[in-house]
Amino acid sequence: MKNNLTQKIILAHLTKASEMKVGEEIYLKMDQTLTHDITAVMAYLAFEKLEIPRVRTQCSVSYLDHNLLYVDHKTPDDHIYLQSIAKKYGLYLSRPGNGICHSVHSARFGIPGKTIMGSDSHTTSAGSIGMLSFGAGGMDVARAMAGLPMRFQMPSIVKVNLIGKLNPGVTAKDVILEMLRRYGVKGGLGKVFEYVGEGTQSLEVPERLTITNMGAEMGATSSIFPADDVVRRFFKAQNREKDFVEILPDQDAQYDEEVTIDLSQLQPLVACPSQPDQVKTIAEAPKVKVHQVYIGSCTNASYADIKKAAMVLKGKKVHEDVQLTLSVSTRQIFKQLLREGIIEDLIDAGARITEIACGACTGIGQAPPTKGVSVRTSNRNFPGRSGTADAQLYLVSPEVAAATAITGVLTEAKDVMEDVSILARVKEPLSYVIDDSMMIKPLEDGRDVEIIRGPNIKPLPINDSPTHTLRAKVSLKAEDNISTDDITPANAQFSSMRSNIPLIAEYAYSRYDAQFVQRAKEMKTSIIVGGENYGQGSSREHAAITPMFLGVKAVLVKSMARIHKNNLVNHGVIPILFENPADYEHIDLGDEIEIKDLIEGLKKKEVTIFNQTKGNSFNGVLDLSDAEVNILLCGGQLAYIKSQLA
Amino acid sequence: MKNNLTQKIILAHLTKASEMKVGEEIYLKMDQTLTHDITAVMAYLAFEKLEIPRVRTQCSVSYLDHNLLYVDHKTPDDHIYLQSIAKKYGLYLSRPGNGICHSVHSARFGIPGKTIMGSDSHTTSAGSIGMLSFGAGGMDVARAMAGLPMRFQMPSIVKVNLIGKLNPGVTAKDVILEMLRRYGVKGGLGKVFEYVGEGTQSLEVPERLTITNMGAEMGATSSIFPADDVVRRFFKAQNREKDFVEILPDQDAQYDEEVTIDLSQLQPLVACPSQPDQVKTIAEAPKVKVHQVYIGSCTNASYADIKKAAMVLKGKKVHEDVQLTLSVSTRQIFKQLLREGIIEDLIDAGARITEIACGACTGIGQAPPTKGVSVRTSNRNFPGRSGTADAQLYLVSPEVAAATAITGVLTEAKDVMEDVSILARVKEPLSYVIDDSMMIKPLEDGRDVEIIRGPNIKPLPINDSPTHTLRAKVSLKAEDNISTDDITPANAQFSSMRSNIPLIAEYAYSRYDAQFVQRAKEMKTSIIVGGENYGQGSSREHAAITPMFLGVKAVLVKSMARIHKNNLVNHGVIPILFENPADYEHIDLGDEIEIKDLIEGLKKKEVTIFNQTKGNSFNGVLDLSDAEVNILLCGGQLAYIKSQLA
Repeated sequence: MKNNLTQKIILAHLTKASEMKVGEEIYLKMDQTLTHDITAVMAYLAFEKLEIPRVRTQCSVSYLDHNLLYVDHKTPDDHIYLQSIAKKYGLYLSRPGNGICHSVHSARFGIPGKTIMGSDSHTTSAGSIGMLSFGAGGMDVARAMAGLPMRFQMPSIVKVNLIGKLNPGVTAKDVILEMLRRYGVKGGLGKVFEYVGEGTQSLEVPERLTITNMGAEMGATSSIFPADDVVRRFFKAQNREKDFVEILPDQDAQYDEEVTIDLSQLQPLVACPSQPDQVKTIAEAPKVKVHQVYIGSCTNASYADIKKAAMVLKGKKVHEDVQLTLSVSTRQIFKQLLREGIIEDLIDAGARITEIACGACTGIGQAPPTKGVSVRTSNRNFPGRSGTADAQLYLVSPEVAAATAITGVLTEAKDVMEDVSILARVKEPLSYVIDDSMMIKPLEDGRDVEIIRGPNIKPLPINDSPTHTLRAKVSLKAEDNISTDDITPANAQFSSMRSNIPLIAEYAYSRYDAQFVQRAKEMKTSIIVGGENYGQGSSREHAAITPMFLGVKAVLVKSMARIHKNNLVNHGVIPILFENPADYEHIDLGDEIEIKDLIEGLKKKEVTIFNQTKGNSFNGVLDLSDAEVNILLCGGQLAYIKSQLA
Repeated sequence: MKNNLTQKIILAHLTKASEMKVGEEIYLKMDQTLTHDITAVMAYLAFEKLEIPRVRTQCSVSYLDHNLLYVDHKTPDDHIYLQSIAKKYGLYLSRPGNGICHSVHSARFGIPGKTIMGSDSHTTSAGSIGMLSFGAGGMDVARAMAGLPMRFQMPSIVKVNLIGKLNPGVTAKDVILEMLRRYGVKGGLGKVFEYVGEGTQSLEVPERLTITNMGAEMGATSSIFPADDVVRRFFKAQNREKDFVEILPDQDAQYDEEVTIDLSQLQPLVACPSQPDQVKTIAEAPKVKVHQVYIGSCTNASYADIKKAAMVLKGKKVHEDVQLTLSVSTRQIFKQLLREGIIEDLIDAGARITEIACGACTGIGQAPPTKGVSVRTSNRNFPGRSGTADAQLYLVSPEVAAATAITGVLTEAKDVMEDVSILARVKEPLSYVIDDSMMIKPLEDGRDVEIIRGPNIKPLPINDSPTHTLRAKVSLKAEDNISTDDITPANAQFSSMRSNIPLIAEYAYSRYDAQFVQRAKEMKTSIIVGGENYGQGSSREHAAITPMFLGVKAVLVKSMARIHKNNLVNHGVIPILFENPADYEHIDLGDEIEIKDLIEGLKKKEVTIFNQTKGNSFNGVLDLSDAEVNILLCGGQLAYIKSQLA
């Protein structure tokens, strides 16, 4: 049988035989895991509870890369905890300053054909080197680290046929923005995008990473490129040729869908505020005055990205009303750029070089001014993502970002350069600087290592099993497209509270409804009602844990994002869909509801919701697998894993 | 008559003839001013009220250098406001990324023999190039910008006779730590330290800056070095020879005191927690495990400082349990170090290079972990200064900091280097990279410029004139050595609230007494009681404005730091000294007091405090000049200046 790339990797990792029928439940072994500092603590608190002496993966890495501002003691305390955990349980630890997880991982740890799960939605970046890669909540990563297979619905596999070649000044970012333009932020749900065709040959690994990384913005299960000669060259340049494995789709492999992009026809694009699919050409975009340009993030701070931005800026100066901050994605790349004098060129132009970290992308520093316009090379532009609630974020390529920094309005590189074709000559190095000294290797035996737990690290709250009858009030009635940023804000202050659920729970939904926390506490037991695409965006499981901690027992919505549903199930919060979406109108904030025979209902995947306040009742359905129902019956994944390990 | 350096500059700037008798009031014209982003907004809000079209100094510079983290919209809003103010009122603006005010100012703007006032206590750094330099609150700087003479008490002038030469691994930091060991944190009150003698010849301008900078830690009015051939060389290297003016003390000049330091006898020193005068040798200091090393700040991030630290680190790695963060003081120096490959050496060793900014020194990022030990090259180690209340800060030279980063315990450079003598060969460059492109020049005419005022910028609160009888309660009874950090904490979160008094006032004294704000609000009118050296440390006037805003009408203490007293007077809060310090025991928190005939008392500089609760009374004295009394009678400096301008 002819298989595509995704099917090949799935086949090699299935723990139970399966026909790989779209939508069917499959179980996959995870070869690798990664976590980063602001989602990790929950994952390791859960892992500790499993009482396993060492991770049971081929390779697990804990990255300290997101919150390096250290605005108070909390994050440094977390980092010390994570370092002790890595030592005890046999993980690699990537120290602060080594680089952003996705960039470092594809360069130094990833292996084509392997699977990886990471506690970050952009873990799909590893698809750039032909890994099958998944973002998940921390509890799922804990499960993967315990060596247990991970449950998925067999995705629909989309062939993205790339033809032609990008023109100078048009970039990989424009490829993924074009995908977002076509598919929208929900268009990738249940799908793996497999990029093939002659057009892939002109895209180097970091460019592929930009594309697979932002597959997450379409809600895709994953995105992947073949492990071809381009990837082989990258591994050789990383002095890792021995880790390279060629893995390509079979000729005439079958796909569930197919789409073609002619790279030569693309123009520089921009995602306008406040969703990544609000894509326009630069020419069509509004000519607003720009306050801030940020070049950085896992998405777009590779060697070539920064070098091209520097070429656009060379000999010019950042506009006097614009702040240009730039952060390189890894120490390896920073060193490469230093040696070539590129960092100096950037400083000459007036760029502010901030630390090698995720930083501004996730609102950890470099917040724009009030109502500020920020043009960024990163991956998300949700309201508040930047740390400033009313800022307007535009997502672009590094070349457009650099040109914009010069003029102060959205600008293409060709409009500020004498000869834009020189950009096309920039290639990745034939050999990178190799220095893994900021990576701490696992100990042979860490059993005697003491875990260092600062005062900010509070125990993982654990939910109860469901009761036969659920009586609750509606503590929130939300609209469509609620993102996990709406539920658990991401910025410098909040990100450092991630290890402390009692504290961060005080801010749940604070930007969306400042009264939610108080109300949920008073109600004691409550449910949240929502619209379409509930829980989109980041994989952060705090968006599930904090409502759970506040007594939310179920979430009743029209539709729901995949990772967030998993996170709710993992923490024992029941995700219920309106059987008839119009019933959304029959339930309001403060209504008292009752669900009888809840346990039976879970098993039948159908419940009747009686609205005592309104005196009506309607049906809810549970779009859950049997395994997911079993997790809910245990009160959450932790108890379930324990039962499986026992 | 033979004059010392200080007297020469004072004579050239007196606006009224004076005998320059120690303690006598003198008025000096200020040639230059500087402000930085976290103290500036108050200064310019006051300046705006004066309705003068343009600053009346020879040169005024607004530096955006302290809070570049931008954790939310507040600081970027402030920066935009400050940029519009500079444009309107004829100031230079140093953009974020250009460097730390004191380092940039001495290199690019300072002129020997001139006077400067800055809204930062370390403005005394300019003494390194033979300027007479003063830290002050923003209101004083507003007055200086209005061209009005500044009032001082004629200082006592101390000849610091430097002999001998520093051994390799011993540094200018050890000179000032030795001064602190001898004089203590109050030993400089009312004094100018004038450094002379053959020992000065081996100290380059940035080394002199380390010394004059930390004169502030002794409470000194100022510190100064001669503008000699060493300074001439520095100006030449800055391509500013035309601005150089030789200015030396007359031979056989008279001084009020004299002290001698034999540089060849010094050893590497450390200021232990939690005051800068807790000085020990490295050998004597406790061998505690270090979590964090910070090399940076205006005090110790010069070209030679960073280069020497890099030499100590060269070929070695930062200890696995230590975070080494390093920030260079100016863009000019960063470029110089880039060209020499020194930044790469630092990265090789495992240093995290953070942005060119004040940052960690003032608790804006890089807070240590809980109970963490942080070894720093900066200037202050007060409790909470780092952003972590229970952290322990040790102040050292860059060489000791670098050695400590390697071993994880306080260590001298000689203990990790094969040949420490190579450090002695490091000299400042003969010519620096000259690039002022991140400095925005004043407009010829800014009258039409519109001031951009973000929502965080609230109007300057203005005090009322005093009433004839003051009835108040004691809202706080504080101990000795209260620093302005205790009153208005400095960290990322609080620093960004400096433009918004109603907001930041909510945190007044929050680390010292969490109930203070609530109590002061309930009392409506209150006084604060304190011990010795009240208001030491930073010049931030928020330590005066926020209590004023909360209804504090007077501060009754045993003794008080100079700048803080000025700030209180400027904002109409009456600084009263116990005539008999033992009376401190006769007044407690919550006591109700009454001061009758307050206005008469102000004029007589003596008041009787009747403690209604205890039924006793005692005397307070006002150590104030007639001018200061007049300011208080106006309710503060703003009304007073207006009356003088009218």
